[in-house]
Amino acid sequence: MAHIVGMDVFDVRFPTSRQLDGSDAMNPDPDYSAAYVVLRTDDGPDGYGLAFTIGRGNEVQAAGIHALAHLVVGRPTPDTAAELAALSAALVGDSQLRWLGPEKGVAHMAIGAVVNAAWDLAARRVGRPLWSFLAEMSPEEIVGLVDFRYLTDALTEAEALDLLRAAEPGRAERAAHLRAAGYRAYSTSAGWLGYSDEKLVRLAKQAVADGFDMIKLKVGASVEDDVRRMRLAREAVGDGVRIAVDANQRWDVGPAIEWMRALAPYDPYWIEEPTSPDDVLGHRAVADAVRPIRVATGEHVANRVVFKQLLQAGAIDVLQLDAARVGGVNENVAILLLAAKFGVPVCPHAGGVGLCELVRHLSMFDYVAVSGTDENRAIEWVDHLHEHFTDPAVVRGGRYLAPTEPGFSARIRDESLARYAFPDGPEWRDGLL
Amino acid sequence: MAHIVGMDVFDVRFPTSRQLDGSDAMNPDPDYSAAYVVLRTDDGPDGYGLAFTIGRGNEVQAAGIHALAHLVVGRPTPDTAAELAALSAALVGDSQLRWLGPEKGVAHMAIGAVVNAAWDLAARRVGRPLWSFLAEMSPEEIVGLVDFRYLTDALTEAEALDLLRAAEPGRAERAAHLRAAGYRAYSTSAGWLGYSDEKLVRLAKQAVADGFDMIKLKVGASVEDDVRRMRLAREAVGDGVRIAVDANQRWDVGPAIEWMRALAPYDPYWIEEPTSPDDVLGHRAVADAVRPIRVATGEHVANRVVFKQLLQAGAIDVLQLDAARVGGVNENVAILLLAAKFGVPVCPHAGGVGLCELVRHLSMFDYVAVSGTDENRAIEWVDHLHEHFTDPAVVRGGRYLAPTEPGFSARIRDESLARYAFPDGPEWRDGLL
Repeated sequence: MAHIVGMDVFDVRFPTSRQLDGSDAMNPDPDYSAAYVVLRTDDGPDGYGLAFTIGRGNEVQAAGIHALAHLVVGRPTPDTAAELAALSAALVGDSQLRWLGPEKGVAHMAIGAVVNAAWDLAARRVGRPLWSFLAEMSPEEIVGLVDFRYLTDALTEAEALDLLRAAEPGRAERAAHLRAAGYRAYSTSAGWLGYSDEKLVRLAKQAVADGFDMIKLKVGASVEDDVRRMRLAREAVGDGVRIAVDANQRWDVGPAIEWMRALAPYDPYWIEEPTSPDDVLGHRAVADAVRPIRVATGEHVANRVVFKQLLQAGAIDVLQLDAARVGGVNENVAILLLAAKFGVPVCPHAGGVGLCELVRHLSMFDYVAVSGTDENRAIEWVDHLHEHFTDPAVVRGGRYLAPTEPGFSARIRDESLARYAFPDGPEWRDGLL
Repeated sequence: MAHIVGMDVFDVRFPTSRQLDGSDAMNPDPDYSAAYVVLRTDDGPDGYGLAFTIGRGNEVQAAGIHALAHLVVGRPTPDTAAELAALSAALVGDSQLRWLGPEKGVAHMAIGAVVNAAWDLAARRVGRPLWSFLAEMSPEEIVGLVDFRYLTDALTEAEALDLLRAAEPGRAERAAHLRAAGYRAYSTSAGWLGYSDEKLVRLAKQAVADGFDMIKLKVGASVEDDVRRMRLAREAVGDGVRIAVDANQRWDVGPAIEWMRALAPYDPYWIEEPTSPDDVLGHRAVADAVRPIRVATGEHVANRVVFKQLLQAGAIDVLQLDAARVGGVNENVAILLLAAKFGVPVCPHAGGVGLCELVRHLSMFDYVAVSGTDENRAIEWVDHLHEHFTDPAVVRGGRYLAPTEPGFSARIRDESLARYAFPDGPEWRDGLL
């Protein structure tokens, strides 16, 4: 029997702030970073996971992962759905560590990194990409992955089981479709706030030429600038392409509504993160006021309890799952089930470091085994930093290809790990800062 | 001009799990701990603050505080309301660190510890206890302390100013009343889950003999046990004493309602933390179902945005401020103003390490300068670990005495700091574990 015999944690940072890639109204100069975890085993492959941060504080995130080692090291490798559920429960359930959240922020993202690494390990051990490893589990196994605590007023175990059973017919066809045609993507690469108008127009046209039918612009710093940029983008891509806008939590409820009225003539598809990610009632107030523009959020939603309320309140029209914000695969399965129950499409947040690599697995699992549909769904695509991964996300013709390599795709190349180690890797040590 | 020239961070843990003090339905064996911060200055007193945790992970909390040093060290000591507001804004506003929350969990508690240390420093420098230092500021200065981002749909700056101006008459009389008579306390010391029935009855009677007119029991592990313990407590204290119960987030919405129906015959005054602290809509559902029993929460409410919604939704009847969970004095002033706007009484969470010491200042400030009333208000009192503080909280005849020493009372005695340092202090090193 194989065991997890060690946990290594790495602080890896990419100096993205030098190019203004990733700049938005709340995050002017991010250095995209990962608190990266390797579960070492005594037999067979290791497992890889990460928490994404944007620079300073990545060492705190790494410390949060270190604090979980006593719950992981020494265990047999978790190979079954039940064993993966037990590991997740042990991590979420440590009563002393729970105080640091509960189930939010640094402590919860640390759990997510380790849970995801355990899933990566399990999928590698059976030689399957995570999405298909998950999608071939029985409805009972999938329901057994979920912690229903705090969910039962919105979704019971029995209801979840019914949803999964209803999606059983057609699993094989949908998996075959993914392998043949991939999963729809949308592009954020054109719209960073730090880009010039010329660059925005050029990249927006390029996105359409590359096969995307949806792009996204960052907004929220200046309404005049945003109206101009939205107009330029609309002129560049024409009426047939969806343009979403993303305020990155910049506004209070009132200003969010006013700002979206100014942008409405250019037909924004959704407004993302109009206000605090904690503000369920605020999102509902914005949603009620800006329809038919949709409200989207999720990349900073702390856990399934907040998603539950966003759905119960009718506060969001699009749920933006994040692979590395919540407690890993197990909690994301819960969130996919909640979204399916409420009939809200899931369009995951990606970009950052490794998020495209990870989250495509979850959307593909959802399509095959949970919602059973890809209608009005698309995964965010940002074309940077993929070269650092051993199994990088690939988008062709505006669609994510289905991963075929074993695992959850979070493994960073050894050379990148060495070069971008903070603060001692050559990229940081040699005075580039 | 004095400057902050250094920040020292200490991991201090008290082995409370050996006695089952502090045991409840979610936290069976806490080791009450502090990530303790000292702001060192080059002239005059230093400043002291802390984040409270319950053991494992305290080193992560300490790392979170360390990550803030670049924003604090080298600054002139913040002496005025405006300077204290600027420091708080700098800490909350670091765009890279913000990703780790935003404004929740480890990263936010770290900000709270540093902000509170800065307030301690400022109050020491003028030789005043924090509550009176704060309560003598003008309404304009107090409003200037608050970050209104995400609050304006519930409370505007102008409304806050009106509230504070309305409370100006009588400030001196109320301060004099506090100095003469203190502030009402309630006792949790009788009701820990780990205690025997005999100990519960004995301590409940002792609390009443000591002058308390309200006690609190932990519930949530077994409904049969809770009904028996509640009955015993009611018999012990009689009908004239309030008995609150505290489930520490143990339940989903449905079970919370059923459990409280079983306890209702013994007249519980409030049910505290019936479910997830993130579940605004869940709290509202419980509140609607269990009236006239009140719903209380707050010790794990992550920030002012969640408190805002609990108040907007009518989900709580009692707001349980915590001195060390949110972003420090500045955010707690915002929360006191929100509570005053909605007319909900504030009964702070205390206990832990240093929470009684800190939070009495906030309730007393509220009484003098914000709500202007102490009706239906009481501060939690747990009689342990006070001996480790240089300015310990003192309760006599069921009332907190008004602090008179300069500062915010978070300073830990040097001997305690040395003895309980983790893992190298003699209490931990010498094999007691």
